[in-house]
Amino acid sequence: MNRIITISREFGSGGRTIGKMTAERLGIPCYDQELITKLAEKSGFTAEYVKERSEYTEHAGWFSNAFSGRSLDGTSNQDYLWVIQRKILLELSEQESCVIVGRCADYVLRDHADCLRVFIHADMEKRADRIVRVYGETKDAPKKRLREKDRRRAVYYQFYTDMEWGKAQNYHISLDSGTLGIDCCVELLTQLY
Amino acid sequence: MNRIITISREFGSGGRTIGKMTAERLGIPCYDQELITKLAEKSGFTAEYVKERSEYTEHAGWFSNAFSGRSLDGTSNQDYLWVIQRKILLELSEQESCVIVGRCADYVLRDHADCLRVFIHADMEKRADRIVRVYGETKDAPKKRLREKDRRRAVYYQFYTDMEWGKAQNYHISLDSGTLGIDCCVELLTQLY
Repeated sequence: MNRIITISREFGSGGRTIGKMTAERLGIPCYDQELITKLAEKSGFTAEYVKERSEYTEHAGWFSNAFSGRSLDGTSNQDYLWVIQRKILLELSEQESCVIVGRCADYVLRDHADCLRVFIHADMEKRADRIVRVYGETKDAPKKRLREKDRRRAVYYQFYTDMEWGKAQNYHISLDSGTLGIDCCVELLTQLY
Repeated sequence: MNRIITISREFGSGGRTIGKMTAERLGIPCYDQELITKLAEKSGFTAEYVKERSEYTEHAGWFSNAFSGRSLDGTSNQDYLWVIQRKILLELSEQESCVIVGRCADYVLRDHADCLRVFIHADMEKRADRIVRVYGETKDAPKKRLREKDRRRAVYYQFYTDMEWGKAQNYHISLDSGTLGIDCCVELLTQLY
């Protein structure tokens, strides 16, 4: 049976880097950007659109998600992407052992694959430093960007999985990458796998 | 500077055993039952009373805690125990490197010591099995016992720390002892330390 590592992460925590480095160490592929490309191909939307709408709600408001952008039969582009994304994740998990970053893969693959469910987080200060270093400055202050991203990701997660984002009980292991350091997280995950 | 491992744990997750085994491997003391003895000595209450009232609210109701058993000046026996407990934890952390199980030590020592904050959890099925094996049967079904313990511990934690119980972000590492196994958790913590 294929063994999958799913990595959920707070924005700016270095979860994607940890996923890539762990996959490299284990000699298995890591799916992150590649998922967006696949999703764009299958859905017909642009990669940019897919990236935004496959992990985040459109607005930061807690109640807006359920009602925004829905067609007359009640489905939205986001629901449509969710269905395709789910199918891609299930196919991937049947195909090979791999690391999957984000996309609620922990939830989708919960009963379908041998998964190690990982959550990576870090405190606000360290994440703010990191996003400026990695993604550069924008007109919004880094902490404001983080708060909005966190909130939109949490709403998205809760809407489609009915579970609480960042609750330790949902994962096999949760790591504070800010304190432990990225290399240490990679080491622990490689060993656990 | 002394290095402390604080272990918060769901009831029945084996967190106490993990604490003891990790401490043994590291050759440092583990405080758990010993804290209750100290607390009983200093407070004048019995060990039995202290055990119940130093980690749990009296009732399972979410709002009862703030109002139950308070004297005219607004403090309760529980508040009194909290103050003594806090003092004992701070003294311990200045005294030696050690493992401390429970007692909100993660919160109390947050700004006072070099702490590795750990949260141990496991799913309901595995915890129910474990409490029957370790603590024996009682008239209440194991899952009912677990739900009540969880809720009372969460309320206690939230009341005194104003933080959410079991939120990954509050800990450096959270581990699912049910899936990973107790030995694996001990191994990871020993390495991290």
